[in-house]
Amino acid sequence: MKPAFLAQDQVRVEQMLQQTLQQQSVPAKALHQAMQYSILLGGKRIRPSLVYRCGLMLGARLEDLDAPAAALEAIHCYSLIHDDLPAMDNDALRRGKPTCHIAFDEATAILAGDAIQSLAFDMLSSHPYQQVPAERVIAMIQQLAKASGALGMCAGQAIDLAHTNQEFTLNTLEQMHRLKTGALIQCAVELAWLASPASKQEDLELLRCFAASLGLAFQVQDDILDIESDTETLGKPQGSDSQANKATYPALLGIAKAKQKAEQLYQDAMVALTQLPYPGEDLQALAQYLIARKN
Amino acid sequence: MKPAFLAQDQVRVEQMLQQTLQQQSVPAKALHQAMQYSILLGGKRIRPSLVYRCGLMLGARLEDLDAPAAALEAIHCYSLIHDDLPAMDNDALRRGKPTCHIAFDEATAILAGDAIQSLAFDMLSSHPYQQVPAERVIAMIQQLAKASGALGMCAGQAIDLAHTNQEFTLNTLEQMHRLKTGALIQCAVELAWLASPASKQEDLELLRCFAASLGLAFQVQDDILDIESDTETLGKPQGSDSQANKATYPALLGIAKAKQKAEQLYQDAMVALTQLPYPGEDLQALAQYLIARKN
Repeated sequence: MKPAFLAQDQVRVEQMLQQTLQQQSVPAKALHQAMQYSILLGGKRIRPSLVYRCGLMLGARLEDLDAPAAALEAIHCYSLIHDDLPAMDNDALRRGKPTCHIAFDEATAILAGDAIQSLAFDMLSSHPYQQVPAERVIAMIQQLAKASGALGMCAGQAIDLAHTNQEFTLNTLEQMHRLKTGALIQCAVELAWLASPASKQEDLELLRCFAASLGLAFQVQDDILDIESDTETLGKPQGSDSQANKATYPALLGIAKAKQKAEQLYQDAMVALTQLPYPGEDLQALAQYLIARKN
Repeated sequence: MKPAFLAQDQVRVEQMLQQTLQQQSVPAKALHQAMQYSILLGGKRIRPSLVYRCGLMLGARLEDLDAPAAALEAIHCYSLIHDDLPAMDNDALRRGKPTCHIAFDEATAILAGDAIQSLAFDMLSSHPYQQVPAERVIAMIQQLAKASGALGMCAGQAIDLAHTNQEFTLNTLEQMHRLKTGALIQCAVELAWLASPASKQEDLELLRCFAASLGLAFQVQDDILDIESDTETLGKPQGSDSQANKATYPALLGIAKAKQKAEQLYQDAMVALTQLPYPGEDLQALAQYLIARKN
């Protein structure tokens, strides 16, 4: 079941993103339109919700979570624009709508992605935080930069591309996902932790364990949905992974073992969560929803 | 004449960039190689030198200037990788060597650019500053993000692309250059100012005037060199601007008036510089060199 707060968090982060974009008087019209189109294309906004729910659990102020939530979503969003490019995954459809380079053109899509990455760091550094000391703002920026770049998300996409049409071992597949999607999922809880002034050092490792298991569970579930769901529900062509000769958990493990793997990872996430001395209902509901979702 | 400090600054910023790249154990080999290839491809390193010379003039510590100098150069470097892509300027040669997407492939070039942008913010936020308070580090990140994104460099490139094969007025050409190269040149003096604890508010406007005039003068000179220099000296095909139907100052003004314009802008920069209560010899020498250069 979709938790009620997910819709609230969606609205909140989209307001933050929309306001930020509207306040910018961008001198290049097509660029601005492409940024708005891609940022407001929809999506589950899972990373922002993780920031909000984790931060609130740790005692952060809601207003202080807007910038990390929006910045993280901006990084995710720019990565989708670039991943969809002809030279990368060459996808024409995203969330049931034309991808950025189809709706605009390739050059504009490249630039929109670039500018959205800058925007993420702009938002993190420009936000009027109420309770986050400057040193922690810098640490947030550092975490986001590391999670986005050659030690994180970009490395994951590079490994993914390097292995298209090639054999993937289970270890490499896992490493790829831990970087490509896991790095930002883990960054969500790190940013939430940094935005919470009373957060304790010993909580951080458990939060990272929670996020790492959740991130991988999410990805295994994605692979399962690519086989078991349909194009309309997914908003992208069903079976596109296997058609693109992409390695998936079901392809390597079989569908039954892939489901077991997702369930095991969910349980691992829950074990980490219950060890934390905070009320974890929202994070539990979010994790449950991500494992049970149909798209 | 090339000022002696320019070579020193080059060595210093390249050491900083090289060390940073070597310390990263990037899990994707081709991505790491493409980043190193592009970052260490050479170049005049004018933006870093501006940071160093301006910061030292204002009393900053040399060590505190390494991160802003390297971060700014990283942003410049990633923008060149993306500008050279087939969907953008489609250039095969840069500084006499194959561009990143030729030496590697398009996907790797896109990702290397993306990861180098992240690296810029990583360097700015991770540096062990000695005399720069945390609030000013955040302000540096904010300035760099704004100068790089949809209000700065990316907008300039978008305007440039939108006007290829179309008429450019002198005003639009100037706006394009003020964004595409001017934003980062201006950012250089802003970062230097922020890294200098004793810098005064009233200096900032004069520094910005200096940088704005210098940035535009640099660009006018670039256009002149595209006509008057040769391929070997330039490290890229001579005449490539006019072949690509790009608007240039000589094309709009004629070569004589373009030279007058460059000279006038240099004089404007000098007027701003002499109003500052600091010894401006290095900045003057740098400006002189940029106007008199042959490549």
